[in-house]
Amino acid sequence: MVVLQLLSFWFLILGPVVAIWPQPSSISTGDTPLFINRDIKVTYNGNPILFDPDYESPKIDSKNVVQGGVRRALGTIFNHGLYPWMFHPRNETRSFQPRLSDRSFLKILEITQTGIDNPSTFKPLAGEVDESYELSIEIDGKASISAVSSTGILRALETFTQLFYTYSSYRDYYTPYAPVSIKDAPKFPHRGLMLDTSRSYYSVKSILRTIDGCAASKLNVLHWHITDAQSWPLEIPALPELSAKGAYNPNMVYTPEDVRMVQEYGIVRGVQVVLEVDQPGHISSLAWSHPELLTAYDYQPYTDFCAEPPCGSLRLNDSAVERLLDKMMDDLLPRLQPFSAYFHNGGDEIKASNSAVDPSVGTNDTAVVSKLLQSYTDKSSARVRKAGMTPIVWEEIPVDWNVTLDADMVVHSWLGSDSVSKITNKGYKVIDANYNYLYLPCGLGQWVTFSPGSSYQNGEPFTDWCSPFKSWERVYSYNPTAGLTNEQAEKVIGSEATIWSEYTDELTLDGLAWPRTSVLGEILWTGPLNEDGQSGSRNQTSAAPRINELRERLVLRGIQAARLQMTYCTEGGNCVQPLGA
Amino acid sequence: MVVLQLLSFWFLILGPVVAIWPQPSSISTGDTPLFINRDIKVTYNGNPILFDPDYESPKIDSKNVVQGGVRRALGTIFNHGLYPWMFHPRNETRSFQPRLSDRSFLKILEITQTGIDNPSTFKPLAGEVDESYELSIEIDGKASISAVSSTGILRALETFTQLFYTYSSYRDYYTPYAPVSIKDAPKFPHRGLMLDTSRSYYSVKSILRTIDGCAASKLNVLHWHITDAQSWPLEIPALPELSAKGAYNPNMVYTPEDVRMVQEYGIVRGVQVVLEVDQPGHISSLAWSHPELLTAYDYQPYTDFCAEPPCGSLRLNDSAVERLLDKMMDDLLPRLQPFSAYFHNGGDEIKASNSAVDPSVGTNDTAVVSKLLQSYTDKSSARVRKAGMTPIVWEEIPVDWNVTLDADMVVHSWLGSDSVSKITNKGYKVIDANYNYLYLPCGLGQWVTFSPGSSYQNGEPFTDWCSPFKSWERVYSYNPTAGLTNEQAEKVIGSEATIWSEYTDELTLDGLAWPRTSVLGEILWTGPLNEDGQSGSRNQTSAAPRINELRERLVLRGIQAARLQMTYCTEGGNCVQPLGA
Repeated sequence: MVVLQLLSFWFLILGPVVAIWPQPSSISTGDTPLFINRDIKVTYNGNPILFDPDYESPKIDSKNVVQGGVRRALGTIFNHGLYPWMFHPRNETRSFQPRLSDRSFLKILEITQTGIDNPSTFKPLAGEVDESYELSIEIDGKASISAVSSTGILRALETFTQLFYTYSSYRDYYTPYAPVSIKDAPKFPHRGLMLDTSRSYYSVKSILRTIDGCAASKLNVLHWHITDAQSWPLEIPALPELSAKGAYNPNMVYTPEDVRMVQEYGIVRGVQVVLEVDQPGHISSLAWSHPELLTAYDYQPYTDFCAEPPCGSLRLNDSAVERLLDKMMDDLLPRLQPFSAYFHNGGDEIKASNSAVDPSVGTNDTAVVSKLLQSYTDKSSARVRKAGMTPIVWEEIPVDWNVTLDADMVVHSWLGSDSVSKITNKGYKVIDANYNYLYLPCGLGQWVTFSPGSSYQNGEPFTDWCSPFKSWERVYSYNPTAGLTNEQAEKVIGSEATIWSEYTDELTLDGLAWPRTSVLGEILWTGPLNEDGQSGSRNQTSAAPRINELRERLVLRGIQAARLQMTYCTEGGNCVQPLGA
Repeated sequence: MVVLQLLSFWFLILGPVVAIWPQPSSISTGDTPLFINRDIKVTYNGNPILFDPDYESPKIDSKNVVQGGVRRALGTIFNHGLYPWMFHPRNETRSFQPRLSDRSFLKILEITQTGIDNPSTFKPLAGEVDESYELSIEIDGKASISAVSSTGILRALETFTQLFYTYSSYRDYYTPYAPVSIKDAPKFPHRGLMLDTSRSYYSVKSILRTIDGCAASKLNVLHWHITDAQSWPLEIPALPELSAKGAYNPNMVYTPEDVRMVQEYGIVRGVQVVLEVDQPGHISSLAWSHPELLTAYDYQPYTDFCAEPPCGSLRLNDSAVERLLDKMMDDLLPRLQPFSAYFHNGGDEIKASNSAVDPSVGTNDTAVVSKLLQSYTDKSSARVRKAGMTPIVWEEIPVDWNVTLDADMVVHSWLGSDSVSKITNKGYKVIDANYNYLYLPCGLGQWVTFSPGSSYQNGEPFTDWCSPFKSWERVYSYNPTAGLTNEQAEKVIGSEATIWSEYTDELTLDGLAWPRTSVLGEILWTGPLNEDGQSGSRNQTSAAPRINELRERLVLRGIQAARLQMTYCTEGGNCVQPLGA
C-alpha cells in the first residue's frame, strides 16, 4: 500500500502522466519533443491524404472514414488543442514546454490498414470489428498508425490527438513524448451511452455533440431511446399522426433525415447509433394518436400501473396493435438497417395490472401474460429480423416473464449483477447498465411533487429512488463482470451509461454525461481488471490526472463536461485521501 | 388534505397559474388580455423614460437605476420573452392565446417613487431599504408601479416582466391577466447567493450572469467568496505579488476594475455584492507570495490541520501578519465601500492544531487561541469599520471560540438550526446558510481521490460529507427560522445559497445554482410560513408550475438553469405523488 501511495506521489512530483484516456493496453514513451504543423504529410495505404478543412465525407467507405478521421484529428490538434498549464506547477506554466529553437517536426503520419473493411465494419454486431491499432511516433519525425480496420484507425487517431499539446503561444503544437509506441485494443466490444429523448427533447445538434463525446472517449454505441410514454418525437412518414400528435411540439420531431444524419455522423466516427422503440410498455405517447391501442392509459394511482406517469401499454392480444407495429417498422427499420446492426425493442417495466384492464386480455394471470408476451416478443423480433437486424430487449422480457429468445439476441440489463447472472445463465448475451453505477441522473431528486399531507413514501430529504448521485469515483469502481463465472463473463458484451430525462435536458446534458461516461469508457476499454491485473477497486489517484485532462480536452471540443477536481489538485496539489484517515 | 389535493388538480385543469416567482404578498388578476409593444410610454415621477437599447447607466442614482431597470424589463419582454406552449395542453399551443384582432394595448407604464433614495438605498444594511412595491395593470391600458425606493421599483419591474408572454408569432407580446393588482414586499432583507471563486476561477462574465439570476429572482446579495486556500485571484495593487503568484493563472485575476464593474452591475440591479477575504484560515493561497506569514502550510495528513488541502492559517500572534492585512485592507476596502455596506472577514474552520505549530503561538490551548482570536477579530473588524463598513464573520468565531463581537455585526451560520439558535441567543444578527438545505454542490461526490488499500473513511459509494444532493424540493422545505423563538427569529436577517467550487466551475455553474437559488429566494421573500399561513412543508405541487416557468424565463435570459420536471408535467400531466402511495 505504501508503495502504491509513493507511486502516486512520484507521478505528482515527476509532473504530468501521459494522459491517454482510456488507458492503452501497452504504451511506452520517451521525452523528446516533436512539433507538428499543418505541413504534415498524411498517407493512407501509401496514398496522400489532403488536409482540407471543408471536406465533408460524401459516402461511407474506408477511405472517407479515414480521411474524415484525419481531418478531425488535425482539426482537434490545431484548433481545439490543450495548452496544459493547469497540469503543471503554478507559475511554471512555461518552463515545462520544450524550447522553440532547434525544434524538430513530425513530418509524416503513415496510416496503414492491414485488413479490408466489409459492410459490417460500419455497423458491426458486437465483436465483428477489430478495433485494435498500433501507433508509433519516432524521433526522426515519422509517425505510424497500423490497424486491421478503419475503425481501429479512428481509435488510433483519437489517441494521437491526446499526445499533443498547444504551446502557450497558441500558434505551435507539440508532443513531449517521442518516441511513442502504443499497442491497444478494447476488452469489451459494446461501449455505449443511452440517451432518452422522449421525456425531454434534445436538439439534433446536442445529439451530434454527444456522439463527439463518445468518439473522443472510444465509446462505440449511442443507444437512442427515442420514444417513451411522455412524448413521441419520432416521425414515421407512413404514420404521420404519431409525431404530429405525440411530439411535445411540432418543432420537437426527429425526421427521417435527422435520424439518418445522426446515424451517418456516428458511423464515420466509429459510433453505431442503435434506436429503441420501447414496447409494449413505455409507449403511451401513442395515446395522442391511437388511444384505441392502449390499455391502462394514464390510470391512477399511477403507482399501481407503471413506474411513472402516464401509464399505459399496448394491448397484448389485439390485431390492430400488430398492424400498427407492422406499418411502423416496415417504414422505420429499412431506413435504419444500412447504419445499424441492432434494433432495440424495449420491454422493461411491464405490469400485469395493465393486462387485467386490457379488453383484449382481461386478466393479470402471470401465465397468461407471459404467453402473450412470448408471442408479442416473437413478432417484434420477426420485424427486426425481416429488416436484417438483430433485436435487443430489456431484461424483464426473459427474466420476469420467462420469454424465450433467439440465442443471438442481446439482453439489456439494468437491475444489477444478480440480473446479469440470471441472464447469462440462460445463455444470452448481455449489455449491462447497472443502475447502481451507470444511471447518471440518479441522485438529483424527485421529478414527482408532493402536497402537504401526502404520505411521503420518498419524502424528506426528497431523494429519488436511485440516489445517491453516481460520482466519477463510483462509476470508476464499476466492474461489468463482478461476481460472474468466466463462462458467464464471456456473455457480457459491454455496458452503457444511461441518461434518463426526467430532470435533464440538453442544457445540463453535457455536465451529467461527461466525463462520467468516459470513465465507464475506460473500464470497458481496459477490462474488468485493475491496473495491477487484479479485480477490485481501481486507483482513482493515478486515474485522476488522466480523466481531468480528458475533461479539459472535451471542453475544448465543445462539450461542457463537469469539473471533477479543483485546479489546485490538477496542478500537482496533494488531493489524495491520507492513509488511515 | 383532500381539499388541497383537489386544489392542485383544479390548477392543472384550469390551466396556467399566474406564475410570479417569488409569490407576491397579495395578487389579484383578471382574464382580459392586454398587448404591449415598443410604443409603450414609460414615465418616472411624471417624466418620460425613453427606451434606448444602447443606454448604459453612467452613474448610480435613482433615475439611472430606474431607467436601466425599465430598459432591461422591456428588453426581457421583447427580446427574451417566453412563448409558453409548454405550460399548456399539448397540441393546443395556439388556442390558449388571445386573439390578435381587436386587441387592446398597454399604453403607459407610470412609475412613481413615493420616497427619496439616499446613499444607503444603493448599499443598504439589512433592512435599510424598503423593497416593497405596488403594481397594477388596468384594462384601459394603464399600468402603474409605485414604490418607496428605486429598489422597490426594480423588484416591481421583475414582476412586471413575468406577467407577459411572447405570442407564437414571436412578434407580439401580451399579458392574459388584466386587470392586475399586486402588493408585495419581502419578509427577509438578506437574500443571497455565495460564490467561491478561489477553488475554481469564474470569468467576470459568468459572475455578471449570476447577478442576472439573482435579480430575476429578487435576491439582493451576491456574497463573493473571492479568496480561499487554493488560489488568490484578487488583485491588490499595493501587494501585487498576492495575485501574481497566488492566482491559478495570470489570466485568472480579478482586477480592481473587474471588482468595481461587478459591484456596479449588481447595484443597478438591486443586488449588493459583498466580498469576503476568508481569514485566518482558508487563506493559505498567500503561501505563494508570503509563506512566512502562515503556519501549518500544506501539513499532512491534512485531516489533522484543516478541512481540505492545502492547510495553513495566518499566524495569530505575528505583527507581520497584521502589517500585511493593514496594507491589504487599506487598499481594498476603500474601493469596496462605495458599493457595499458589508465586508466579510471569514473565520470558519479554524483548527487549534495550527496554533500548536505556529512559531508565534506554540500551543493548541483553547484558552490561548481564543484570546488570540479575540484580538485578531477585533483588529479585522477595526479595518472594516475604518472603511465605513460593517463586518460579517462565520459562526465559528463567536460559537466555537467564544469571541465577543460588536452588537451590530452579522454572523454567518452554516452548521444548521442549532447553530442559529446559539448565535441568536448571544444576541447577534444571523445570515443562515444551513448546509443541509443550501449547499448546492453537495451530493456530487468526493473531490479527494482514494488509492487502493487506503481505508475509505468515506469510501464506496464515494459520497461526499454533505450528500445527498439538495433537490429543489429539499430547498423548498427549508425554513430559516425553524425551531427558533420569535425573539430568536427576529435576529435572522436572511439566508444564502452556497456554491463552493471543489467540483464546480463556470461550465456547470448555472445548472447547479438555478433555479434552486430562486427556490430559496421565494422562501426568503415570502417568509417562513407556507401558503396556508402555517409553518411547515410548503406545497410543491402548486409551486412546481411557477418554478418551472421561472426556469424557462431564466433560460431565455441566458442562464442554463436545470430542468426540474418533464414537459409532460409542465403541460398539465399529473405529476403529483398519489395520496397514500
